[in-house]
Amino acid sequence: MSTVLGIIAGGGDLPRAVAQSAQDGGRAVFVVGLKGSVTEDWLAAFPHAFVFLGEPGKAITALKGAGASDVILCGRVDRPGFSELKLDTKGMMVLPKVVAAARKGDDALLRALVGIFEDDGFRAVSVAVAAPGLVATEGSLGKLSPTDDNRTDIARGFAIVKALGALDVGQAAAVCDGLALAVEAAEGTDAMIARVAGLREALRGTPKARRGVLVKALKPTQDAVTDMPVIGVSTVKGAADAGLAGIAVEAGRSLILDKKAVAAEADRLGLFVIGMTP
Amino acid sequence: MSTVLGIIAGGGDLPRAVAQSAQDGGRAVFVVGLKGSVTEDWLAAFPHAFVFLGEPGKAITALKGAGASDVILCGRVDRPGFSELKLDTKGMMVLPKVVAAARKGDDALLRALVGIFEDDGFRAVSVAVAAPGLVATEGSLGKLSPTDDNRTDIARGFAIVKALGALDVGQAAAVCDGLALAVEAAEGTDAMIARVAGLREALRGTPKARRGVLVKALKPTQDAVTDMPVIGVSTVKGAADAGLAGIAVEAGRSLILDKKAVAAEADRLGLFVIGMTP
Repeated sequence: MSTVLGIIAGGGDLPRAVAQSAQDGGRAVFVVGLKGSVTEDWLAAFPHAFVFLGEPGKAITALKGAGASDVILCGRVDRPGFSELKLDTKGMMVLPKVVAAARKGDDALLRALVGIFEDDGFRAVSVAVAAPGLVATEGSLGKLSPTDDNRTDIARGFAIVKALGALDVGQAAAVCDGLALAVEAAEGTDAMIARVAGLREALRGTPKARRGVLVKALKPTQDAVTDMPVIGVSTVKGAADAGLAGIAVEAGRSLILDKKAVAAEADRLGLFVIGMTP
Repeated sequence: MSTVLGIIAGGGDLPRAVAQSAQDGGRAVFVVGLKGSVTEDWLAAFPHAFVFLGEPGKAITALKGAGASDVILCGRVDRPGFSELKLDTKGMMVLPKVVAAARKGDDALLRALVGIFEDDGFRAVSVAVAAPGLVATEGSLGKLSPTDDNRTDIARGFAIVKALGALDVGQAAAVCDGLALAVEAAEGTDAMIARVAGLREALRGTPKARRGVLVKALKPTQDAVTDMPVIGVSTVKGAADAGLAGIAVEAGRSLILDKKAVAAEADRLGLFVIGMTP
């Protein structure tokens, strides 16, 4: 654990949280930001470099130069059109494998990307290893807990997400009184939650009479090294706007960014946030 | 087949197509329009009555008075808030069963509604029996056929829809180059297709460079009597706007409203529409 942690950073809030959590734990980090995916402004706080998705050779050189032997790929990786890719030599060599993987779904693509670094001698580590404080644990995070009706919906939500996840489709679903309100595919969890509020009011809850749950869980096709489901304060706000009663995530296999802030926001808005074993 | 066909009509274009197709085939029909769900304007062309969803007793009386012994429930049935239901005596008696079924999903709800009429001596018939001309057959409907890439996406789409359908979630999915762009839940197929155009362009096709497919298939939980998947001209237009290359439906187990118009629209917009056995 004493070597430098290499963080290949895509979009969203996760990469920064991992970098901060690892550094707070006393570990040196080096961040490689993926241009076109990463939000660039936070990288200045850490030793870093930028590469395009098609430049794994450049990323490997930067990571080795920084003394990193462990790498973690985290955050959202936007799929470029393959015709728009800026490729280095290594990128050209691995492209056929990556294109083939991309056709099989997001998880296959991520595994292929991680595999490029493993083939070069790096050790792929999970967020659970790099930043264990982010991993969801069993039980409610704030003051509220799910009702029996909520628990029935949560069980159905986990069944839906696991079935979808087995086909590498999505990792989230919203369920209210047994009805699947929304299921996640390429649009992502935030967009999926946002459309719940557009459904007829008879089907769903409201901020004044909360009903239904958001469930997020690891896909069976995911290996927890690359792409654990993530929730944060914005997820709580989105679920609140959608009239949902709460959020259930898979304990030990999903991430909660800033647990204190999530608990406070859930209490403020009147939602539960719970880690469970499906 | 000589008795009057009772059509319990919800929303959308299907009930009218069934009534017209049956009448064109020489069969007398009687339409019971579900207030709050049915589009009322077309019922004037047929012998008809209106009832609320909570008035099965009134519906049964009207159907028996018209001499109907076969019934078909078709079209979209909007779920009212159960507190808003206008109930007749029969409605009160069957309400607990219906509420319990509604918690299990749309198909369970529809089966429970059909069961009310079967318990009163009616025979539930499928669209395939009442209006066989609407059922999708094997093969392309217009001039275009799917490419090999399209067929790969179609196979993945059928796998996704069948897995989701086994959990009574939805009956449609959009897939492009292996990526599940969108999966249907409570929003319905049209809304699902509409959001494909909102995804980043690298993930999907455009009207100038069509990619990806819409797949619609019977849920394993559906019994083909009550709720076969339906496409029509509006589905072709929606898929065209979303940049998709075509539509695949399950032959023998889905419905195409106005096949001639669908074929003409598909040819005009450059999409394929095909019936297949998954």
